Amino acid sequence: MKTKLQTWLPILEWGREYKPAMLVNDLVAALIVTIMLIPQSLAYAMLAGLPPEVGLYASTLPLLAYAVFGTSRTLAVGPVAILSLMTAAAASRVAAPGSAEYIGAAMTLAFLSGGMLLVFGLLRMGFLANFLSHPVVSGFITASGILIAASQVRHLLGVEANGGNLWTIGISLARNLEATNAPTAVIGFATLAALLIMRRFMRPALASFGVGPQTAAIVSRSGPVFAVVAGIAAVSMLRLDAAGVRILGVIPHQLPRIGLPPLDEQLVASLFGSAALISLIGFVESVSVGRTLAAKKRQRVDPNQELVGLGVAGIAAGVSAGFPVTGGLARSAVNFDAGAETPAAGAFTAAGIALATVFLTPHLYYLPQAALAATIIVAVLSLVDLREIVKVWRYSKSDFAAMFGTIVTTLSYGVEIGVTSGVALSLGLHLYNTSRPHFAIVGRVPGTHHFRNVKRHNVITSEEVVTIRIDESLYFANARFLEDTVYAILSERPLMRHLVLMCPAVNSIDASGVESLEAINERLKDAGVTLHLSEVKGPVMDRLQGGPFLAHLTGKVFLSQQDAIAELDPSCASEGPDTVALPGALADA
Amino acid sequence: MKTKLQTWLPILEWGREYKPAMLVNDLVAALIVTIMLIPQSLAYAMLAGLPPEVGLYASTLPLLAYAVFGTSRTLAVGPVAILSLMTAAAASRVAAPGSAEYIGAAMTLAFLSGGMLLVFGLLRMGFLANFLSHPVVSGFITASGILIAASQVRHLLGVEANGGNLWTIGISLARNLEATNAPTAVIGFATLAALLIMRRFMRPALASFGVGPQTAAIVSRSGPVFAVVAGIAAVSMLRLDAAGVRILGVIPHQLPRIGLPPLDEQLVASLFGSAALISLIGFVESVSVGRTLAAKKRQRVDPNQELVGLGVAGIAAGVSAGFPVTGGLARSAVNFDAGAETPAAGAFTAAGIALATVFLTPHLYYLPQAALAATIIVAVLSLVDLREIVKVWRYSKSDFAAMFGTIVTTLSYGVEIGVTSGVALSLGLHLYNTSRPHFAIVGRVPGTHHFRNVKRHNVITSEEVVTIRIDESLYFANARFLEDTVYAILSERPLMRHLVLMCPAVNSIDASGVESLEAINERLKDAGVTLHLSEVKGPVMDRLQGGPFLAHLTGKVFLSQQDAIAELDPSCASEGPDTVALPGALADA
Repeated sequence: MKTKLQTWLPILEWGREYKPAMLVNDLVAALIVTIMLIPQSLAYAMLAGLPPEVGLYASTLPLLAYAVFGTSRTLAVGPVAILSLMTAAAASRVAAPGSAEYIGAAMTLAFLSGGMLLVFGLLRMGFLANFLSHPVVSGFITASGILIAASQVRHLLGVEANGGNLWTIGISLARNLEATNAPTAVIGFATLAALLIMRRFMRPALASFGVGPQTAAIVSRSGPVFAVVAGIAAVSMLRLDAAGVRILGVIPHQLPRIGLPPLDEQLVASLFGSAALISLIGFVESVSVGRTLAAKKRQRVDPNQELVGLGVAGIAAGVSAGFPVTGGLARSAVNFDAGAETPAAGAFTAAGIALATVFLTPHLYYLPQAALAATIIVAVLSLVDLREIVKVWRYSKSDFAAMFGTIVTTLSYGVEIGVTSGVALSLGLHLYNTSRPHFAIVGRVPGTHHFRNVKRHNVITSEEVVTIRIDESLYFANARFLEDTVYAILSERPLMRHLVLMCPAVNSIDASGVESLEAINERLKDAGVTLHLSEVKGPVMDRLQGGPFLAHLTGKVFLSQQDAIAELDPSCASEGPDTVALPGALADA
Repeated sequence: MKTKLQTWLPILEWGREYKPAMLVNDLVAALIVTIMLIPQSLAYAMLAGLPPEVGLYASTLPLLAYAVFGTSRTLAVGPVAILSLMTAAAASRVAAPGSAEYIGAAMTLAFLSGGMLLVFGLLRMGFLANFLSHPVVSGFITASGILIAASQVRHLLGVEANGGNLWTIGISLARNLEATNAPTAVIGFATLAALLIMRRFMRPALASFGVGPQTAAIVSRSGPVFAVVAGIAAVSMLRLDAAGVRILGVIPHQLPRIGLPPLDEQLVASLFGSAALISLIGFVESVSVGRTLAAKKRQRVDPNQELVGLGVAGIAAGVSAGFPVTGGLARSAVNFDAGAETPAAGAFTAAGIALATVFLTPHLYYLPQAALAATIIVAVLSLVDLREIVKVWRYSKSDFAAMFGTIVTTLSYGVEIGVTSGVALSLGLHLYNTSRPHFAIVGRVPGTHHFRNVKRHNVITSEEVVTIRIDESLYFANARFLEDTVYAILSERPLMRHLVLMCPAVNSIDASGVESLEAINERLKDAGVTLHLSEVKGPVMDRLQGGPFLAHLTGKVFLSQQDAIAELDPSCASEGPDTVALPGALADA
């Protein structure tokens, strides 16, 4: 069995079983991921409006931290596109992009969001991620992908353009379009085309040459590495920087200084909400990636311990001059395909990035920003999932409303308002949907013991004994609706003497639900009607027996609806031979 | 059948059937309610920090408006204690109590909150009131009652004391205690004692003298009228105003001027949130009162039309120099007991208050504020319901947590933060509770076709075919929990070849739930396990058939769990004689 310490420090669990063969696999995977991670780290730092070295710093210490505290065997932590955009949105609210304060704000965001994740992890509050419904997350990611791609077009063209939402970015681009730098645009669009072609055709092409599927998968994802090399070669040989092509320039080739980020009260207060959103989105993204990979090997991730792992990684980013990080899909998939077996691969990757920071950065001097922008655009286009929008539309208009609202607000008002209103929308729609649950007046199907909806079946009913089947748990959002339904039926049926609430689908009843039942009981009593329950589930019955409702109930609780009708309305009960009851699950709506 | 116009203007419905006998009953009820309403209106205006005539104005035009648009036959609209406190809290944020701006802010609050109710009514959005769970409302009302009583102690003692929460009020009172005005305290506490005795013993005493129960009920509620008369007599005869007893003084004996309240942008912006809370609380309070009374006569109130009626009443209060109103329990009960038959009684009451405003106010000059404070305290003490707290504690710790949080925040931070945090708490706890629904691995009870929890029963299971019964609808808050549960079971059972999800209690599946099922299906496929469903409900199945999930499902959907086991694991299926299945409702937890 796992010890308590092993739960908190998963490294103790997998570290004990570490074998030389694993070491080899992890080292190979780390080498491949390191190569992939270098262009990605530089690109996402640019997306966040930060100097390139910050991207490398965010890919060093956080990976080590996650290797010690994380539960996913193959998750690769580092900067990701959406968190980079969210960092840019938050940091540019408090400081000018490019300033030392801006970099400080990014570090503070990483530290704060990491701290929040850690606290939630220690309190075992992973369930908070459940506030985000799938359509909201999916819509948010699609809209963010579009926003990110739009924000990078200026680098492709070599023009200035700013804006916090799709429309302002578009207007700004249109105004500056004539200032396009031709060599930049050539590099940008050529890289874009090459990356798209590579992504589309590389895998089947390699497969047709007999390359194994995992190797093919890795190579097809290595486009950004080739783009970087080709870009550097083109610019340095043709001296395109003199022709106005923006290049990465000098990157300080030293490791990050370790130290606390700026944490003065005012800065923390103004970044607090943004940090909370970053931690939430980062957690949801990372857990879904981790889960996908773990299930393939019948392993599992512990969401609460993931909070701890990602939290410590975020804090590590904050104290090592980095910016917010989380588990990314692309690099985790490479890590997985490259054969990483344990989180040690992440630690080796951290070492690789550290070496690259010291020895490789001088060679990145001529790297054109347009090439990095092209890699970002290709990466985020895979986030845009239009088919998912159609699918949700087909499945549920309510879920679609939440998704569509999230997309529109994200595109129009930016990532922070987008995700916040998405959460509010999905909560509101959930309450709305469950606030008007399905109810049916039921009667007995002749010759059977089945009770079915009077609107759908020819059934035996009575004016004096009325049965309502409730198809939902009773809680505060629908408690009043139940009352209204019962009173409406009461006002329409002057001859009613008994009301039976049939509860086979009531999984729980909260205090508001009981209060409504008590109110119904009292008001029916005033109106001369007796209230009964039937087919109450075991756990619900246990609950009710703890309160005074059953003592006040004017009628009885019947084990089965047939028992209720047999006692209350014998003339309506079955006179035929007893029939086998179908499982309740087969009941119609 | 009701016409559309009759739905929007209920007066057209009951007005057509109006008979002379009803007129007599309505007139008698109106007279009684008018007498009751005068001291109440004055008292609640004082509680709101407003001049006494504002209370009378709020009891005139709004009643007429509700008579035309409201659906409850017997609801009596007017100022109520909690809305008065909320008005004081909101108005004192933007203006000094007693100033013209303060009065304007109260009018604006009435107008805005009425407008919101009207808009929600026209959009048929009555379901919004469902955001308030019963324990939150109950805790909020109890805490507000305590706050209101505490705020009136200064009038009983004739001292100055201010504060927005229980602790600051208490400290302020303690500091000024030595300044107590003796004659004021005598009037205050004598009135308090008389009212409490009257409330406690009047009804049984009258009954023992042979007075009918309805008359006894009305007389026992008329204490405030006697208190006002006795207070005026004592002060005017003993000239206690010269001894420092604060009196009502001159009330302008004219009808309110009709006109828009101040609606400048800044004021509206700063009162908007408060108006929303006032409309929400007012609506919840009024609907619960209206429902109780309607059910006694087998009538019903339409929550959406109630929004319209209360909305127009609020707007009427705003344009006639009043402050926020809603349906009050005490006066509605008197109206009901006095035999009111139609909303016309409300219109007659409005006329009565108008007459009183013009002709009676000069006689209220000597009315001591201490007597009014005593009537407020006695009225709000009935709001404090400690037994309900104990009851909720016994029934559910989660509901109790929401209630207790609401009480503590209301007492400590005032009504607005109190109710807001109550709503947030109950939403959060609901998500938390449903985010970890009950799941059970089930097996077949030997010799039967029943499938029960392996932890509770001796059942037949198999290492290769595992069945999980889900006891909750699948939606975004628990979708990820389902995935985690399945993956945990998967990681523990290396021999598993088939997984059956048994869904008799799954009332609905939203897009997040389907997404999780698809993810589970894919990941189980990667792990070599086939996924099946059993006992899926009709409406859920209809939904699933609209999406691609069933096409991708590796296994089958079985009508019954027995069918599933018979096909997947014949050796485990029953070999004995077929037995009658118990209704699913009787299944244990």
